[in-house]
Amino acid sequence: MGIVVQKFGGTSVGNVERILNAARRVVEEKEKGNQVVVVVSAMGKSTDQLVELAKQISPIPDKREMDMLLSTGEQITISLLSMALKEMGHEAISFTGGQAGILTESVPGNARIKHISSGKIQGCLNEKKIVIVAGFQGIDENNEILTLGRGGSDTTAVALAAALNADRCDIFTDVTGVYTTDPRYIKGARQLKSVSYDEMLELANLGAGVLHPRAVEFAKNYGIALQVCSSMEKVEGTIIEEAVTMEQNLIVRGVAFEEDIIRVTLVGLKNEIQHLSTIFTKLAENHINVDIIIQSQTEAQKTSLSFSIKKEQLNETISVLENYKKELDFESAEYETGLAKVSIVGSGMVSNPGVAAQMFKALADEHIKIKMVSTSEIKVSTVIDEGQMLKAAGILHTAFGLDKLKAEAEVSS
Amino acid sequence: MGIVVQKFGGTSVGNVERILNAARRVVEEKEKGNQVVVVVSAMGKSTDQLVELAKQISPIPDKREMDMLLSTGEQITISLLSMALKEMGHEAISFTGGQAGILTESVPGNARIKHISSGKIQGCLNEKKIVIVAGFQGIDENNEILTLGRGGSDTTAVALAAALNADRCDIFTDVTGVYTTDPRYIKGARQLKSVSYDEMLELANLGAGVLHPRAVEFAKNYGIALQVCSSMEKVEGTIIEEAVTMEQNLIVRGVAFEEDIIRVTLVGLKNEIQHLSTIFTKLAENHINVDIIIQSQTEAQKTSLSFSIKKEQLNETISVLENYKKELDFESAEYETGLAKVSIVGSGMVSNPGVAAQMFKALADEHIKIKMVSTSEIKVSTVIDEGQMLKAAGILHTAFGLDKLKAEAEVSS
Repeated sequence: MGIVVQKFGGTSVGNVERILNAARRVVEEKEKGNQVVVVVSAMGKSTDQLVELAKQISPIPDKREMDMLLSTGEQITISLLSMALKEMGHEAISFTGGQAGILTESVPGNARIKHISSGKIQGCLNEKKIVIVAGFQGIDENNEILTLGRGGSDTTAVALAAALNADRCDIFTDVTGVYTTDPRYIKGARQLKSVSYDEMLELANLGAGVLHPRAVEFAKNYGIALQVCSSMEKVEGTIIEEAVTMEQNLIVRGVAFEEDIIRVTLVGLKNEIQHLSTIFTKLAENHINVDIIIQSQTEAQKTSLSFSIKKEQLNETISVLENYKKELDFESAEYETGLAKVSIVGSGMVSNPGVAAQMFKALADEHIKIKMVSTSEIKVSTVIDEGQMLKAAGILHTAFGLDKLKAEAEVSS
Repeated sequence: MGIVVQKFGGTSVGNVERILNAARRVVEEKEKGNQVVVVVSAMGKSTDQLVELAKQISPIPDKREMDMLLSTGEQITISLLSMALKEMGHEAISFTGGQAGILTESVPGNARIKHISSGKIQGCLNEKKIVIVAGFQGIDENNEILTLGRGGSDTTAVALAAALNADRCDIFTDVTGVYTTDPRYIKGARQLKSVSYDEMLELANLGAGVLHPRAVEFAKNYGIALQVCSSMEKVEGTIIEEAVTMEQNLIVRGVAFEEDIIRVTLVGLKNEIQHLSTIFTKLAENHINVDIIIQSQTEAQKTSLSFSIKKEQLNETISVLENYKKELDFESAEYETGLAKVSIVGSGMVSNPGVAAQMFKALADEHIKIKMVSTSEIKVSTVIDEGQMLKAAGILHTAFGLDKLKAEAEVSS
């Protein structure tokens, strides 16, 4: 007997029927003799509907009040799931993030979990109760409600698994596992039996929406074995763990893509040693996530600096740069919108030189212009025109032989 | 400068436009130089929608989980109202019941407020913030979320007014004040300028849905002046206070009515002295509100006992009576449904004998059969067939001259 954490995403609890379905999955696990903790997201599109409601009242709603608003979505799901389990004859109890002992930073809309006091949950598990916890939320020392940012329910699940020393953390979602690329858009996408934490981290960071990057990071740090699987179909999922069997010795294991990328270019920046750190410190202080960074020297004394951000952070980026324009001492800032990022990911790259070159050639052959490049040991990212994103992803998926992968489940575009 | 508590009901915050309208009312009060605390209900029919959702999952949903579910409704409104006020340039902060320091009993679905720690609210008021509190909810010592039962937002408002030693408590609703009877159903209903706490208490208890009885009780005990007024129209409301100017020396000031009444009759009850107390203690322990009670002796050793309950408590009443059948020692229980209660209320009754007789005659003249009667110093209630409820109310409204009352606002049926 061990502890299993199960997480059900928004689609998996999107209506009454699906909540009942999720409840049956919980009961199955419980009846295997395990203690079960369940983490749930808000039902279907309910978070989006709340955001829409807020925007009708305030174009840029106050972040603290947004957390107050959005945290209700998960609270609705936990109560309904608990009712469903009780209706099926099982002891269950629901907790908000705060009640579950999840303590977070005081960063509205994007708080990180600082600590979990798991005593209350453990006590309920010992009383043979199924414990249901609202994902995506916690409280700070002042009893303020905070959310973890989009996809934060995955993080809640993994953090609880770590705090409870759980045997497994199952992420139930609307896909059957992790794919070589997004099967909704790219023909020939194949499901992977397993991926390493690092690969998953890159894939998640690159917009493969199956798992939240923070959750993967957490799982890696605490050595929690994750399983991504379907809440609808009973098929094998994808395991995310440290040691991965190399499926057919694939060098590249995934192609990820993400739209709504903006390239910010600061022109006429004085070429001084502390400038770079000042700029990115200011951006980080304002919780702006900068991705790719490129610096190029244009004149002896002047330099230009480009970096990519996501579209939703454009307004804040502009205001930070305007506020510190004098201090940062640049001539002008340019913003290029309508861009996308396409990346290849694979642990095998480390020992196989020439992967990046092969990627650039495949894109060049199809006349796709690369605007920015970033590489790590296990990934290569390129920024291109948004209109060419899906074409580029498809080309790379084929170029690296991912469509030939023998898969558990095959999904056509 | 003083403290004013404003409460906006579900209809008054039913959509974005109405929330903005409520926000303007709050700002008006603030700009008079007052410190303002606002209590809000869930938006429009959202509580009913949540109940519906729960019932799809469980016919008799777990009460603790219902509190978890329903408390989200008010939480949504507080965040949206706070955003609206900030958008209008005012400092505002929203609190859930628990955050606001509202400590309740541990009775799911029907908890009473035990204590309010108003320090946090007072601190925010001192910082010139408008404080918005979720009505209808609180937490107990174990940090469990509890609701106060339907209409509980009124109670939250009055209790906060008492705890903060507020100068006034304004209840904004979808009607312009307290009427002699329900203007939606009875032609000639007139608005009252003022009513006493006791009259309002009887009217509220008798189903005049303008104010929750507990709220009136609280206001009476703490001497809080209440004002019921419209959130939509700027007309004078009705003041509820201790000393009331007798408008045209009315003996009866209101006719109230309520459907979904059930008469429970216990037949063949042993005529023993402790029986009555045992039965009603058991019912009270199970939080069943019994209204009218009639005992009649049928034989020397046996007696029969009738009492009225509300329809929503039928299932629980049946299960309590079944569970204690042996102990209570009755032969059978009968349940008559399809009944309604029609009552007349007025402080003037005390010094005017014959009011009840006048009521019975008016009903008898129209062939309305009275099934149960209950009287107090300031009211007479009758239980009749549901189908005759509105007719009876109309007859009594005319019989006691309420339609002749010169009123601020006249509303036709």
